[in-house]
Amino acid sequence: MKFSCEKQKLQEGISISNKAITGKTTMPILEGIYIKAFKNSLTLIGSDMDLSIETSVEADVIEEGTIVVDSKIFSEIIRKLPNSDVYIETLDNDIIQITCEKSIFNLVYMKAEDYPSLPEIKENISVEVPQDILKSMIRGTSFAVAQDETRPILQGILFEIKDKKLNLVALDGYRMAVRSEYLGSDDNIDVVIPGKTLNEVAKILEDAENLVKITFTDNHILFNLDKTKIVSRLLEGKFVNYVSLLPQEHKILVEVNRHDLQNCIERASLMSKDSNSNLIKLDFNEDNVIITSNSQLGKVREELNINLQGEELQIAFNSRYILDVLKNIDENEIYMEMTSSVSPCIIRCKSNDNSRYLVLPVRLMR
Amino acid sequence: MKFSCEKQKLQEGISISNKAITGKTTMPILEGIYIKAFKNSLTLIGSDMDLSIETSVEADVIEEGTIVVDSKIFSEIIRKLPNSDVYIETLDNDIIQITCEKSIFNLVYMKAEDYPSLPEIKENISVEVPQDILKSMIRGTSFAVAQDETRPILQGILFEIKDKKLNLVALDGYRMAVRSEYLGSDDNIDVVIPGKTLNEVAKILEDAENLVKITFTDNHILFNLDKTKIVSRLLEGKFVNYVSLLPQEHKILVEVNRHDLQNCIERASLMSKDSNSNLIKLDFNEDNVIITSNSQLGKVREELNINLQGEELQIAFNSRYILDVLKNIDENEIYMEMTSSVSPCIIRCKSNDNSRYLVLPVRLMR
Repeated sequence: MKFSCEKQKLQEGISISNKAITGKTTMPILEGIYIKAFKNSLTLIGSDMDLSIETSVEADVIEEGTIVVDSKIFSEIIRKLPNSDVYIETLDNDIIQITCEKSIFNLVYMKAEDYPSLPEIKENISVEVPQDILKSMIRGTSFAVAQDETRPILQGILFEIKDKKLNLVALDGYRMAVRSEYLGSDDNIDVVIPGKTLNEVAKILEDAENLVKITFTDNHILFNLDKTKIVSRLLEGKFVNYVSLLPQEHKILVEVNRHDLQNCIERASLMSKDSNSNLIKLDFNEDNVIITSNSQLGKVREELNINLQGEELQIAFNSRYILDVLKNIDENEIYMEMTSSVSPCIIRCKSNDNSRYLVLPVRLMR
Repeated sequence: MKFSCEKQKLQEGISISNKAITGKTTMPILEGIYIKAFKNSLTLIGSDMDLSIETSVEADVIEEGTIVVDSKIFSEIIRKLPNSDVYIETLDNDIIQITCEKSIFNLVYMKAEDYPSLPEIKENISVEVPQDILKSMIRGTSFAVAQDETRPILQGILFEIKDKKLNLVALDGYRMAVRSEYLGSDDNIDVVIPGKTLNEVAKILEDAENLVKITFTDNHILFNLDKTKIVSRLLEGKFVNYVSLLPQEHKILVEVNRHDLQNCIERASLMSKDSNSNLIKLDFNEDNVIITSNSQLGKVREELNINLQGEELQIAFNSRYILDVLKNIDENEIYMEMTSSVSPCIIRCKSNDNSRYLVLPVRLMR
C-alpha cells in the first residue's frame, strides 16, 4: 500500500471514524482504524460492533492495499504533523512508514484480514431527512434516555415513522421527550436505536440542510451522509407505548417565558442540591408563579409573571428534570399543561407541536 | 449589617477572595467568605491560613457589620442572580437575606468572631514590580517546582533580591528555571514561597504595567495590588544554592528555532510515551539536529536545521522536561548550551539573559 494525501483532510476523516472506536470491545483489532487505499481515495472505518462509521478521504493512491493501525497513536501522529502532504506506505515486517516534510514515523500495523466484516445493509426501506433537523431531534430527546440498565429498551431512542411523520421518543421513569417532524413518507417503521450511538451520529451530522438518507433492516439502521456511512445496531424488543402516556386533556394552561423560568429554577435549585430529590415547589397563581425551595442551607423564593388559564395549582418537581427540558427547548414562548399536583405536566412550544416534553411531579407529604 | 452593591462587582470580588479558599483546612469556618461592610465598601476575605486574599468592593452600606458565609453556595447564588443591584441584610437567627429583583434567598451565616485573625504585616522591606512582569516570572518558573514531598523546600519558589535584580528560581531533581528582572533596589532578600500559592497570585495579577507592592516579614510575604491584598506564608528552611548548579562554561552552543524544536519533540515524544522515561535522543550535527525515539509501537525520526558552534554531540533527554521548558519561553530564537552527554544543558533566549533553564540529560547505556 502506498498513497499520499493532505494532512488536514486525513485528520478530519480520522476524527469521524474514531467516533465509533470506544475501546469497549474485547477485540484488540477494534482499537484500530481500518484504512483501505483504492482508486483515488481512502476508506477509513472505525467500529465497536454496535456502531460502525465509514468515511472516505481523497488521496493519491500509488499502490492499493488495506491495513489496520492503532487508532490512538495514528490519530495523534497525524494531528501533530505539519500542515502538508502526508506519504504513507507499507514496508516489510508489518511496518507502515508515515512521512511528512522531515518527519518520519515507522509504526507496526495489524492485518486487515483480521478485521471483522461489517453488517451488510441491503437497501430496503429508506427515507431522507435534512441533517440539521435530525441533529436537533436527537439533541432534543437524548437527554431523557434512561441511564440505569434495569430496562435496556429505555436506553434507546424510539425512531418511528408513522402518519407521514418522523417521531423520536426517549423516556425514563420520570420524564419523556417527544420530537416530531413532517416526513413525506408512507412507510411505517418503529425501531429503537441505542442512545449512545445516536449521540455520536449527532456529532457527525452537519448544521445544514443537506439530506441524510436513512435505511432500515431488521437489525441495523444506516445513516448515509455525503462521504460518511454510519451503521448502528438496533435494540431488541418493543418500546413503551408512549402515546398512551401523553395526557389527552388538561385543566390548567400556563404561558411562561422559558428563559426566565429556567433562570428562576436554576437559582431555586441551588437550595435543593443537598437533598437527593432536588425538590422545588411551584405555586401557579392568576398572574404569577412563586417558586420556592428549602434545605438545611436556607431557603429561596422566586417570582415570575405568567398567563394562567384554569385554576390555581401548587405542584412540586425534581428541578433537574424540569431544567433538562427547559435547556433543550430553543424557543422562549412555551406552554405548560397540567391537571393536578399528581398528574404529568406537559411542556411544549407555543408556536408548534413538534416538541412535547412530559415531566412527572413529585408527590408532597401533606 | 445591611448593604447593596452591583451584582457584577460583588461577583468579581468573590472570585478573587475565593482563590484562597481551598477546603484543605480542618476549620469549617475557613470554607466561608468573610464579609465586612464598613463605610462605603465591603471587605471580602478568603483564607486557608497558608494563603489569605483580601479584596474590596464598592457598596452602599446602610448598616455596618461583619459576617462569614459559606463561600460555595454564596458564590453560586450571586453568580446566578440577574445583572442588577443586590441587597444583603442580616435577619434574626443568624440568617442573611439576599434580594435581587424578584429573587429572595435566606441563608445561614457564621459568626465573624470565630474567623481566625490574619497575619499582621508590619511594613518592613518592600519593593515594587510591574504586575505583568511578576506574572510572567511566576508562570515561567512554577512548572519546575518539585511535585513530590521528599524535600519540602523544593515545593516553593525562591524569591531573591540581590545585586539590584529580582530572581525567581524553581527546581526539582531534573530541571531548574531561573527568571530574572532588573529591580532598582539595594535590598538583599531571599525567601521561599509555596509554589501553589504563587500560582494563585499569578491568576490575580493583571497583564498590565500597574505596580504590585511586595512587603516581606520573617514568616510572610504580602502582595499589595490596587484593591486586593494577598498574604502568603513562607516556607521554612534554606533554598538550594542554585548559582552553583549553573555551569560556568560550555563547549557547544546551538542556535535553534524554539517553535520548530517544540513541534519536533512533541511528535517524537508520541513514540516515547509507553516507557516511563519519555526518552528521546538528539544528535547535534554541523547544520542539523536529528531527533529519534523508539518504543514497542514503532520509531520516529525528526530533522531540524540548527546553527552549531563546537563539536557534534549525541545527548538524550526526558522529552517532558525539555517540552516544559520550550512551552514556557515566549521568544523563538533560543540557544542551547551543552558540554557533554552527561552534563546539564542550559536553554536560554538569544536576545537576553533573563530566562535561563537547566535540564539534566538522561545517561544512555552504551
